[in-house]
Amino acid sequence: MTPAHFEDLRSQLSFPDSLVFRVTSEYEKYFSDATTYSGKPAAILFARVKEDVQAAVKFCQKNKIPLVPRGAGTGLSGGCVASSDSLLLSTELINHIIVNKPTATAIVGPGAITKTLQDEAAKVGLTYPPDPASFRESTLGGNVAEGAGGLRCRRFGVTKDYVLGLEAVLADGSLLRTGVLGNGSGFGLEDLLQASEGTLGIITEIAFRLIPIPTRGATILVAFDHPTKAAQTVADITAQGIIPTVLEFLDGDAAACSNEYEKNEGLDDAAAILLLETAGQDTTKEIVQIREICERNRCNYLRGETDPERAESLWNVRRNLSKAIKASAAIRISEDVAVPNTQFPVLVDFVAKMNLASPLRINAFGHAGDGNLHVNFLSSSGSETDKELIEQGILTLMKKTVELGGTLTGEHGIGLAKRAYLPLEFDPATLRAMRGIKQVFDPFNILNPGKLLPK
Amino acid sequence: MTPAHFEDLRSQLSFPDSLVFRVTSEYEKYFSDATTYSGKPAAILFARVKEDVQAAVKFCQKNKIPLVPRGAGTGLSGGCVASSDSLLLSTELINHIIVNKPTATAIVGPGAITKTLQDEAAKVGLTYPPDPASFRESTLGGNVAEGAGGLRCRRFGVTKDYVLGLEAVLADGSLLRTGVLGNGSGFGLEDLLQASEGTLGIITEIAFRLIPIPTRGATILVAFDHPTKAAQTVADITAQGIIPTVLEFLDGDAAACSNEYEKNEGLDDAAAILLLETAGQDTTKEIVQIREICERNRCNYLRGETDPERAESLWNVRRNLSKAIKASAAIRISEDVAVPNTQFPVLVDFVAKMNLASPLRINAFGHAGDGNLHVNFLSSSGSETDKELIEQGILTLMKKTVELGGTLTGEHGIGLAKRAYLPLEFDPATLRAMRGIKQVFDPFNILNPGKLLPK
Repeated sequence: MTPAHFEDLRSQLSFPDSLVFRVTSEYEKYFSDATTYSGKPAAILFARVKEDVQAAVKFCQKNKIPLVPRGAGTGLSGGCVASSDSLLLSTELINHIIVNKPTATAIVGPGAITKTLQDEAAKVGLTYPPDPASFRESTLGGNVAEGAGGLRCRRFGVTKDYVLGLEAVLADGSLLRTGVLGNGSGFGLEDLLQASEGTLGIITEIAFRLIPIPTRGATILVAFDHPTKAAQTVADITAQGIIPTVLEFLDGDAAACSNEYEKNEGLDDAAAILLLETAGQDTTKEIVQIREICERNRCNYLRGETDPERAESLWNVRRNLSKAIKASAAIRISEDVAVPNTQFPVLVDFVAKMNLASPLRINAFGHAGDGNLHVNFLSSSGSETDKELIEQGILTLMKKTVELGGTLTGEHGIGLAKRAYLPLEFDPATLRAMRGIKQVFDPFNILNPGKLLPK
Repeated sequence: MTPAHFEDLRSQLSFPDSLVFRVTSEYEKYFSDATTYSGKPAAILFARVKEDVQAAVKFCQKNKIPLVPRGAGTGLSGGCVASSDSLLLSTELINHIIVNKPTATAIVGPGAITKTLQDEAAKVGLTYPPDPASFRESTLGGNVAEGAGGLRCRRFGVTKDYVLGLEAVLADGSLLRTGVLGNGSGFGLEDLLQASEGTLGIITEIAFRLIPIPTRGATILVAFDHPTKAAQTVADITAQGIIPTVLEFLDGDAAACSNEYEKNEGLDDAAAILLLETAGQDTTKEIVQIREICERNRCNYLRGETDPERAESLWNVRRNLSKAIKASAAIRISEDVAVPNTQFPVLVDFVAKMNLASPLRINAFGHAGDGNLHVNFLSSSGSETDKELIEQGILTLMKKTVELGGTLTGEHGIGLAKRAYLPLEFDPATLRAMRGIKQVFDPFNILNPGKLLPK
């Protein structure tokens, strides 16, 4: 974008110059998300109100300029990475949170932080259960746009299960308001916009359903000397019909990364770790059952805590795991495939074999209860050869996932990272339908073009 | 459809003649749903497997014949009523139910009955919470296609909150399979098909999320000598942050209909009735709070039961209410508007005033916790004048509902009954988007044409 064009942009946008920035290195954090993808947009716009978003979209529609919406940039699929011919639109400043106790609902701006909503809801005895690992920084607009999940989703459902309604700016600048009551009229457009990654509209307000805070149960940390024992334990727990709030799995290498980063005690030789949390009326019974199952599967470490503070300490093994793994190699590509959870042990075993057969380090952790496995491809050298091996590894993983009846992404979105693989999961008819919908919503392809849908 | 055409149909469909019927009076129940709309289709097809549905759709696509899918025909918006130029496709026979305890999920055919799924799930300690009043007869395919709610939805969410994935036959006969894991890739097409009333595709299989059976609390039946006291009680209960599983409201006339039909005791002079159910860990505390609130609002009848059998008996007042009201007049038109539940008392009051000002009988009952009010327009004579008054009354109700930030239908769908009112709720941009989506999915407009979208 030329300086003249940039000034033209300023003049055409209804929002103040102070919110339109020519891109310089000081905005570096806006060039990428949590992946290795990066791009330098022509300008960065900070919307403060929905009218700002409408103005930006109208400007881009008129001038056929790609517009890339961005929340906190914690995404893991390159969804908010903007190329140099695009404008980046940050919704961080639209971050109001209005919790309504009588209706057990919340109205929030897309820039509101996930944890802030949880804190506000807690003040009136309510909670917003979805908890992506990045919930301390991630925005709710980003959570909805990317179809975020979280650690407690097996029991409580994912982000979309709490969306009662959405307001979004469409490509022509008009405002879509839909489904405020969660079961309203017409097609479920609020649902269609879920996980559409900013390609159909830009979310400007969200109505969430909240629930009473569940009774806290126990947090249980278990280690095994072999992954199969952990996988069997997961299978046994679910076979008993126990639905823990949290059921996290770490393989040996992921555990080692966590130990290195957090200096965990007693887990040095763990070949697999499970982190569980129980909640609800059956919690006491469940704790006993879980302990029995773990011991039957010969765990070599088990610690359970019911005291909130001490329970919190058990979370160290998981909390910064993603950072810990990233820190352990020159290149780290993270995938978040998901399979029906009966297939989870099969997938874990498959990844372990991939790791043994590959010169790369390939480790895995994830939401075992959900069948959602985060697989990390790690290269210490960062060489071109390794990059190629990673590409091949990802394709192998994707094919196996689909073969197991799974999906390419459990909660991270498709973005740039996985669009090429979409045809593995969806037949041509389904892809045609998706392209048709994109055409209806964004005829000039200005809303986050090049994301989600394959070329 | 001519006899020749009919034989041609037989010959072109891959499924046996025994499943293709020329329409005669013996099929009368297939001419309508639970509304007064009716139509006599050219033929009735009974699909046994998804391939039957594909064959029927392909035939209709090729010959440009409208195809109307039908479940149990318990719908309340004319969604499955077929005109004489259409084929009616019943999915009743595709009714398999496979409950998977370890994954707490169920795979069902669209013809499976809601209650049957609840019974099957209960056998392994799980439940499917959504419970439309017709749950004993209604099919799950119909529940999903119409966006059904139910009495316990305020606490547990509506039908769509339990759909993990869908299989549907598209207009070109291809099979769409999507979202089996609930948070999969791409646009949420499984969500888009929710409440699309058979206009985008015909559902052939559904994957549902199940939950552990919640601890049963108390069932509480309360009567008041004035509706305002009941409305205030509802407001006070929600203001305390109590979220009952069930919070049903009946106005005086609805209560009288129930008394007439069920011979309820002690409710003769009730000007308003509330039926509540509690569940979950706080149930004992909640029962005390609810009783206090009811007494503070000077209820003149209160009965609470925790024993399942005796609690069940309190349900008589509500169970056959719809039939009771229908039996009380020559014509009964039922609407199911919904408003943010803070506006529920306003709407109840508005309907009461409408009733006073109208020569018609207008009564109301509904899911107070949900803000979902079923308003009945009743005519004893069934005269043309009354029919016109009903039309006017509905329009007035719809306008007020939208003014209160509500929606035309909480759970019954748009179908034929409300399509004309859709522009009251949605702006042109949103309607354009809906029409565009219909065009993408059904370019020849053969899937349940004339339903949902306005002319």
